[in-house]
Amino acid sequence: MAKLSPDEIVQLFLAVAALLAMGRTLGELVRKLGQPSVLGEMLAGIVLGPTVLGALAPDAMHYLFPAAGNVPIALDALTTVAISLFLLVAGMEVDLSTMFRQGRVAIGVGFGSTLLPFALGFVVFYFGAANGQSDQSSTLIFALFMATALSISALPVIAKTLLDLGMYRSDIGMLIVAVAIFNDLVGWIVFALVLSLMGGGHGHRFEVGETVLLTLGFAAAMLTLGRWLINAVLPWLQAHLSWPGGVLGFALTITLAGAAFTEWIGVHAIFGAFLVGVALGDSQHLRERTRTTIDQFVSFVFAPLFFASIGLRVNFVADFDWVLVTVVFLIACAGKIIGSGVAARLFGMPARQSWAVGFGLNARGAMEIILGLLALQAGLIDNRMFVALVVMALGTSMLAGPVMQRLLQRKKSRRFTALVGAGSFVPELRATDRFKAILELVPVSGAKGVDLAKVADAVIERERLIPTGLGNGIALPHARIKGLASPQIAMGISKQGIDFDSPDGEPAHIICVILTPEDDQNTALELYRDILSTFKDKAFREKTLQVKNYTELLALLASVTANHPGEATIAPPAPAG
Amino acid sequence: MAKLSPDEIVQLFLAVAALLAMGRTLGELVRKLGQPSVLGEMLAGIVLGPTVLGALAPDAMHYLFPAAGNVPIALDALTTVAISLFLLVAGMEVDLSTMFRQGRVAIGVGFGSTLLPFALGFVVFYFGAANGQSDQSSTLIFALFMATALSISALPVIAKTLLDLGMYRSDIGMLIVAVAIFNDLVGWIVFALVLSLMGGGHGHRFEVGETVLLTLGFAAAMLTLGRWLINAVLPWLQAHLSWPGGVLGFALTITLAGAAFTEWIGVHAIFGAFLVGVALGDSQHLRERTRTTIDQFVSFVFAPLFFASIGLRVNFVADFDWVLVTVVFLIACAGKIIGSGVAARLFGMPARQSWAVGFGLNARGAMEIILGLLALQAGLIDNRMFVALVVMALGTSMLAGPVMQRLLQRKKSRRFTALVGAGSFVPELRATDRFKAILELVPVSGAKGVDLAKVADAVIERERLIPTGLGNGIALPHARIKGLASPQIAMGISKQGIDFDSPDGEPAHIICVILTPEDDQNTALELYRDILSTFKDKAFREKTLQVKNYTELLALLASVTANHPGEATIAPPAPAG
Repeated sequence: MAKLSPDEIVQLFLAVAALLAMGRTLGELVRKLGQPSVLGEMLAGIVLGPTVLGALAPDAMHYLFPAAGNVPIALDALTTVAISLFLLVAGMEVDLSTMFRQGRVAIGVGFGSTLLPFALGFVVFYFGAANGQSDQSSTLIFALFMATALSISALPVIAKTLLDLGMYRSDIGMLIVAVAIFNDLVGWIVFALVLSLMGGGHGHRFEVGETVLLTLGFAAAMLTLGRWLINAVLPWLQAHLSWPGGVLGFALTITLAGAAFTEWIGVHAIFGAFLVGVALGDSQHLRERTRTTIDQFVSFVFAPLFFASIGLRVNFVADFDWVLVTVVFLIACAGKIIGSGVAARLFGMPARQSWAVGFGLNARGAMEIILGLLALQAGLIDNRMFVALVVMALGTSMLAGPVMQRLLQRKKSRRFTALVGAGSFVPELRATDRFKAILELVPVSGAKGVDLAKVADAVIERERLIPTGLGNGIALPHARIKGLASPQIAMGISKQGIDFDSPDGEPAHIICVILTPEDDQNTALELYRDILSTFKDKAFREKTLQVKNYTELLALLASVTANHPGEATIAPPAPAG
Repeated sequence: MAKLSPDEIVQLFLAVAALLAMGRTLGELVRKLGQPSVLGEMLAGIVLGPTVLGALAPDAMHYLFPAAGNVPIALDALTTVAISLFLLVAGMEVDLSTMFRQGRVAIGVGFGSTLLPFALGFVVFYFGAANGQSDQSSTLIFALFMATALSISALPVIAKTLLDLGMYRSDIGMLIVAVAIFNDLVGWIVFALVLSLMGGGHGHRFEVGETVLLTLGFAAAMLTLGRWLINAVLPWLQAHLSWPGGVLGFALTITLAGAAFTEWIGVHAIFGAFLVGVALGDSQHLRERTRTTIDQFVSFVFAPLFFASIGLRVNFVADFDWVLVTVVFLIACAGKIIGSGVAARLFGMPARQSWAVGFGLNARGAMEIILGLLALQAGLIDNRMFVALVVMALGTSMLAGPVMQRLLQRKKSRRFTALVGAGSFVPELRATDRFKAILELVPVSGAKGVDLAKVADAVIERERLIPTGLGNGIALPHARIKGLASPQIAMGISKQGIDFDSPDGEPAHIICVILTPEDDQNTALELYRDILSTFKDKAFREKTLQVKNYTELLALLASVTANHPGEATIAPPAPAG
């Protein structure tokens, strides 16, 4: 059998390592700035590809990512598998029951948010200048593709934004999610149809009509019979095969088989992977842990690899066309925001909420980029249009959060971890009673422009009136302080425990002094809630007591956030987006 | 950039799906028979490759696994990545501190168990007929390779066997594990040296001496500086990056980089991956969950893919040489068993235990197969020798468990799950008191050749004397029954709870009637212990109460076995082999 030479293995491994390292690093960086990690992952490819590295050190780039030979083939194989698994996860997030539960309104708003951008996109790109179309494609199919591309939404970005705003489980949150699911599902099926219209698939194995029928038939079968079969088989697999290997192997096998089938009929492999994901994710027998294992590997390994590899294919500077970027961006926003907003108004939503729905659904995220890449590879659009679609996808995703927040006058819920710094953490309190503990913690709280002695008095005064031992070994002394500009926390740990007069009679081990501005009525309560819920688990509290320094504390706190079971299902830590 | 055509994507996906599906299926099958899953995974390749499918339906085999073109290149890329990650996990299991803790004896037995097979192998294959050597290799290097191949042990098989016998944490268990770790480490370094002796690496980039120095230097650096650096960096990564993505991305990046480096200096990529694994696994900051996530993906996806792909390369019928197979098998067993056994005797171990150590270390498992494949690819051995090594690896692994069990007169600890069948599980007991519960459960217990009414009387009689409510909602009524051939359990669940007079005053919800033969003094106690430890977790007991049928019960019980934290570290569910 043909195989890679040792030198090719070296090149391949270095290429993958470079993409992964750069993708993860920039992905983390942009997340710190509150942006979706796909932005950083794409930037990684831009840095390593022709746009930056190719301009600065073309030899290095050509060594890492040669254009011909076995290495690009191997890399293409890895990224094709990666994107198929990414779509598997994206499909698993499509929760059909959420969509059905929201019923009439979801489908109404769903149609509005799909039809207007679709119509607008079709008209502009069919009758307008066929700018950005590649030479060999038909204008009709090009316009159909653009219409589809403009009408999808990015479920993961939307879910993440809603979570950040603490609105995921609110009525409007569930509605937006349901509509996004509808969009996703309809968008992918329409896109598959567009691909199938391109002369019956790449291989010309089937007539156009046959490919269309096969595509629809496969989608229908997977969403009915396939769903049912998978749901029936899973309990048996979990009972009789080793865990989680049985389910894991099964999931990947049917994903690859489904992907091979759709590729074979002439639409892209990822469409099959997506539908298998929908059918699989819908089963109530799929365990949370299996979901998480697939999710984590895909979100943190395959997704960065794939998105970084995109930047290798296109020069984002040379192919950046201001006019095209602006036109695509404006049409995309106009169609989606107006379409969704008006539909939401028609279904009786208040104005601000309706526009918030519009801006939320406007986020295109990773899905748009994948769609664009497939169109580029299929010869439907040229490089300039691909760049315009990528810019639009990232721009709309970055816009969604801030605008929704402003429209709904929501604040991101405050995390106490953001307020505990290296200087305001005392891993081993010396104090043996609660007043001394307060005196020990107030000076490190980082409160500025106030008299710390007075602050300590205020906290002690309040502690005397209302003891703040809350049980479970937690005490949260607190005062509202005149002249304090922003909330401050000093956190201390007492191994032997300090009596804070708590209702359960237990001494406190985790003590956080919370200082808030005098006119701020809510923050303290939010922080209380956050701290109590963070430390609600006994085993976790015990681990906290073992912490030796600030870095270890952060590491421990980071683990609990990522583990939060409710959040994991609906939005993996750094997903798709 | 060069890329795969749609038809090639279809072929590639089908090939991977076939390998994965067949590998997992046969892997599970042989596990049910108590054999290491690598045996089934290899069989999968034999079935899909030239040996079976190639003989029955050559066209189908050539379509799935073409010999030339882009598809085999893509498949080779995937399996090369897969085997590198497998070695990462194997390296992570090498616990240096366990080795050091066992100190003098471990290193003494380690030398014995390495040197004798090494010397024996070298002498036989250097002076004996150079049978199985490929034409182009030097006899010295061939003999050195054979000597190395005979002297390694398979840590995962050994760990799994010891766990099955309930001896992992015993003195002799820890000694065997420590010696196996020593063997693994020394074996791989020597093998890398043998590879480097082959004319300074494949690429002739370095002189032989340079490659040897680079190999030793890299190993030394990874085990000292590399270990220290990784341990220093991990807490920072866990504190500042998203979890577990930060660590996951980091681990895979350094694995690929280390692998690329060793491939570049002229020894195989997997050597670098293995050493990175050792350094990484040694860090006390590496979280259990990160370990498990990597482990599960590798054990259940990458390992089956890789081992199944081996069968594609060789015809195991045509290249099966009885003489060679017998010679290799006998020399391997003689050298290892005598070398380890005698060394253990010299360090003062009793005879039976010494030979048990010898047979335990005799298991070669997956490591031998990988070594053989590399030697085959490097042109060091021919197909017949490769087949002989594979047979030896599988044979010694299958032998280890039964022989150790007999020598140490150990029984596999009995699992109550093996005794609860579909017929002996009552998901909803009607009984409202303990005697009625016993009367309801005894008839379904499956006890044969005995009078069930008398059996029930005996259980009730004993229950009257010693109530069997054990607290935590569990009751285990029991009697030893004359004429009963083998132990029987009937398990019932009572949602409302039945008073079994338990010390904590709580009613019992999980009730298992345990019947054992009259002369069997130990089984009941073992089963007690197993049931209590299975249901020790409150959340798990609550899930048990929700179970609606036998399949769901099995699925639930399967999850707790796989999740058992202590076991997961030392032996992943279906590992390496």
